[in-house]
Amino acid sequence: MITICVDVNGGDEKPAVVLEGIERALAANEDLCVLAAGTPDSGVEAFCESHDRATALVCSEAIGMDEHPTEAIRTKRDSTIVRGCAAVRAGEADGFFLAGSTGAIFAAATLHVGRVPGIKRPAIACAMPGLAGHETIFMDMGANADCRPEMIAQFAAMGSAYAKTELGVDNPRVALLSNGTEDTKGSESAQAAFAACKEVEGINFVGNCEGTDILMGDLDVIVTDGFTGNVALKTLEGTAKFLVGVLKEYASSSILSAMGALALKPALKEAAGKLSGDAHGGAVLLGLKAPVLIGHGATSPTAVCNGTLAAAAAVSSGLVERLTNAN
Amino acid sequence: MITICVDVNGGDEKPAVVLEGIERALAANEDLCVLAAGTPDSGVEAFCESHDRATALVCSEAIGMDEHPTEAIRTKRDSTIVRGCAAVRAGEADGFFLAGSTGAIFAAATLHVGRVPGIKRPAIACAMPGLAGHETIFMDMGANADCRPEMIAQFAAMGSAYAKTELGVDNPRVALLSNGTEDTKGSESAQAAFAACKEVEGINFVGNCEGTDILMGDLDVIVTDGFTGNVALKTLEGTAKFLVGVLKEYASSSILSAMGALALKPALKEAAGKLSGDAHGGAVLLGLKAPVLIGHGATSPTAVCNGTLAAAAAVSSGLVERLTNAN
Repeated sequence: MITICVDVNGGDEKPAVVLEGIERALAANEDLCVLAAGTPDSGVEAFCESHDRATALVCSEAIGMDEHPTEAIRTKRDSTIVRGCAAVRAGEADGFFLAGSTGAIFAAATLHVGRVPGIKRPAIACAMPGLAGHETIFMDMGANADCRPEMIAQFAAMGSAYAKTELGVDNPRVALLSNGTEDTKGSESAQAAFAACKEVEGINFVGNCEGTDILMGDLDVIVTDGFTGNVALKTLEGTAKFLVGVLKEYASSSILSAMGALALKPALKEAAGKLSGDAHGGAVLLGLKAPVLIGHGATSPTAVCNGTLAAAAAVSSGLVERLTNAN
Repeated sequence: MITICVDVNGGDEKPAVVLEGIERALAANEDLCVLAAGTPDSGVEAFCESHDRATALVCSEAIGMDEHPTEAIRTKRDSTIVRGCAAVRAGEADGFFLAGSTGAIFAAATLHVGRVPGIKRPAIACAMPGLAGHETIFMDMGANADCRPEMIAQFAAMGSAYAKTELGVDNPRVALLSNGTEDTKGSESAQAAFAACKEVEGINFVGNCEGTDILMGDLDVIVTDGFTGNVALKTLEGTAKFLVGVLKEYASSSILSAMGALALKPALKEAAGKLSGDAHGGAVLLGLKAPVLIGHGATSPTAVCNGTLAAAAAVSSGLVERLTNAN
């Protein structure tokens, strides 16, 4: 049996949405137990009484999406996020899924779940979609604004190990995000990271890549610092919104174009879903002693179900052991 | 009269495409003279004999899109790019438009047109589209991978001056690209750039912005270093290609969706055109003694015409004088 802790108060939706997701996950995986962390008014106790493989972890408070991450983690010691992380560290759960504020979760998990020995800084990774079913692991998505070269090199090793379990790729092609594909490209810090990545043993480092490669490349892993990673992801998000906005403006210009937009709506919705990372249960924190997965704040029963199952799959595939051996 | 030098051999298309663009520009602006730089086989001499306001600058060689920028500039002294820049410096032309390799043009223009006194490094700027007609000047697009804080501060001043002439905005809102909007966000170098931008007098610096703001914000100018700028632009390009690819994949799945895609094609084409920057004649090098505009390698008569007219407009609006006074 694998036990995954789920934060019932996580995200912007009502706890009932999260509980419905947990119910679906329990139905989908008979080897799954859930430690459901929730406030007394979340309905978590009643839910666990009526579900065999669910145990309630009742906490007195929750951390909102708009609270200051480190401040909230420090002061709200009985919050679902902090208690959930502590339960994972104590071995009461094997992994953690929660929707919500990336900053607060990263801070709490680094502090209370703890790092794999030897890992300098955990990083946030996500599987980005591509055409024809191709996917690329992209990291760091924003946890570490400044990265020393050896940190990026560790990201490359962790990303490679993660791509093996998550994408099922044998010898993942790992590249460094830069301002050109040539070996000589890059800012001074990117060039130093390039040199460090080249020294990592046991990975297939193929050199520099460009921003176009995040969605349109043939790579399995792209690593960068959290500043550049955040800018790239936010730019990607803005571009998708812009193009959808252009189509909406155009759709309102004639009946023909309105019908065209209607016909393509499912495709755009699917693309948006892929870009959100929800298919993989959201983003994953790599470098911690247990898998911690982060879903979007705007969550849904499907997202919670996928995230909980993905956390369980990360446990059963031995993700953390692989990351540990990779460093 | 304003004289704009145009590189007839620039870009991936045949010289005849560029000459057709020059012809259109001459027809559109009666105060325009063109100094057409081309190789003997480009047809530039015959063209200039049959057009009153066109003068040929015959050069023995051209620099290809795939050549190493600084190497080509150094060795090909009689190339259209180098000779065109020299003609601008000598006062034989007031500005320069060329389609082609940004790296080679940036190197040649910095060396042979020369910087405005006091400007540490020229930067490449482009007007990015937004919804409802809003536009944002984005720079540096990739010329300077490493930027000291005072360089970014100069970009902010130049971008503000450019937004006034190009977008017609009175008091442009200038922001620094970062990994969050709060003042405390940013890598160490972004935080140093933030402090330097705050000290710039005579501009309306509103603080940090995110990647989403490039296309979906309400800002007039966004500044960043050339490394981050290149990653953002390439990510934007990749995202647009990805979404068009998703729609294509979907369009081939049924007749209804194929018709939908067909109905929306004009909107996507228009959006792609806006994203390419061709409406403004391409990207502009700011910080040089004369306006130098760069069009896409895959050029067209319309792009050459717009670029040539935009260069003339930059001269007549006193862009360089404004940039000089801004620093």
